[in-house]
Amino acid sequence: MPAMLHDTVIIQFAKMLQNLSLCLDKAAAHAASKKFEPTVLLGSRLAPDQFTLLRQIQIACDTAKSGAAQLTSKDAPTHEDREATLDEAKARIAKVIEYLGTFSAKDFAGAEARRISQPRWAGKSLSGSQYAQQHLIPNFYFHVTTAYAILRHNGVDLGKKDYLGPMPFQDPASA
Amino acid sequence: MPAMLHDTVIIQFAKMLQNLSLCLDKAAAHAASKKFEPTVLLGSRLAPDQFTLLRQIQIACDTAKSGAAQLTSKDAPTHEDREATLDEAKARIAKVIEYLGTFSAKDFAGAEARRISQPRWAGKSLSGSQYAQQHLIPNFYFHVTTAYAILRHNGVDLGKKDYLGPMPFQDPASA
Repeated sequence: MPAMLHDTVIIQFAKMLQNLSLCLDKAAAHAASKKFEPTVLLGSRLAPDQFTLLRQIQIACDTAKSGAAQLTSKDAPTHEDREATLDEAKARIAKVIEYLGTFSAKDFAGAEARRISQPRWAGKSLSGSQYAQQHLIPNFYFHVTTAYAILRHNGVDLGKKDYLGPMPFQDPASA
Repeated sequence: MPAMLHDTVIIQFAKMLQNLSLCLDKAAAHAASKKFEPTVLLGSRLAPDQFTLLRQIQIACDTAKSGAAQLTSKDAPTHEDREATLDEAKARIAKVIEYLGTFSAKDFAGAEARRISQPRWAGKSLSGSQYAQQHLIPNFYFHVTTAYAILRHNGVDLGKKDYLGPMPFQDPASA
C-alpha cells in the first residue's frame, strides 16, 4: 500500500498535472487562432459562484503538493497565488511536478496510518488512507476535471486523451 | 495493495455514486422550484460535442461496474442505456452500488498484476495497477465531476461537500 499511495500521489498526480499543462498549450493555441486574449480563459468559470480556471489550476497544484507533504510528514513549499498568464500557470504546475519528483516510495512508509488534519478541520483528523481515498484523490481529480471542463466549455479542442495522457500499453506480441 | 484497490474501486466509488445520486435529488428540487422539466438537465452538456449529463452518469456507472469486474476477472451485468428520467438515472446508480456491494477484498487478490484489456484497445493491455491508476480512477472521477459541473452550470445549489460526501473524521478527544 505505501507503493500504491506513492504511485497515486506522486507518479499519477504528476502525470495528470503534465496533461493539464498540455491542455493549457491547446488553450493558448485556441486563443491565438480566435484572436482573443488567452488570459480571458483563466478568468472563466462554469457558474458565477464557482472558482475560475486559474483558481482550479492553483488548487489542483496545492492539492497534489500538500497531499504528498501531509502523507509523508514533510513541509510543502509555499507557492503564492500570483499567476496572471497561461505561462505563469504552467510554471506553477511545473514547480509542483518538480516537487513531486523529490519523493520516493520509501517516504510513504506508514503513511496510511498517519493522522492527517487541516486547519479548517478544527482538530479532527482522518487516517492517511481515509484522507487519500476520500479527500485527496477525489479533490485532485475534481479540480483537474473542472479546469478541463472550463476549457471545453470555451471551445478549446480537447478530448479525453488530453485529460488521460498516454497509456503504458503492452503489445499482444510481447505478452 | 489488494485492500487499497478494493477500497478505491468498491468502497470509494460506491460512496461517490451515492453522493452523485444525492446531487440528482438536489437537481430535481431545483427544477421543481424553478418550474422546469427536470429531464432538461439530463440533456444538458457543457459543450456541443460533449456527452450530456445522462451519458456522464451512465458512463460513471459503467466505469465503476466494469472496473470492478475487470480487476477481479468477473463478468459485469449489462445495463441498457434506457434511462429517461432523474429517477431512472438514480435507479441505474443504485443498481451499480448494489453490484459493487457483492465484492470483497479477497476478490482483488492478484488484481494488480492481472492483464486488463478493452475491445477498443486492439489486443493491447495494461497491468491491473496501471489500469486502476492511469485509466479507471481518472475516468471515474472525470465523469462524476463532469456530471456535477453540468448541474452547477445549470444553477443547481451544490457545493464541494455534496461531491465529496461525509468524512469519517476522528475527534481530537478520541485520538
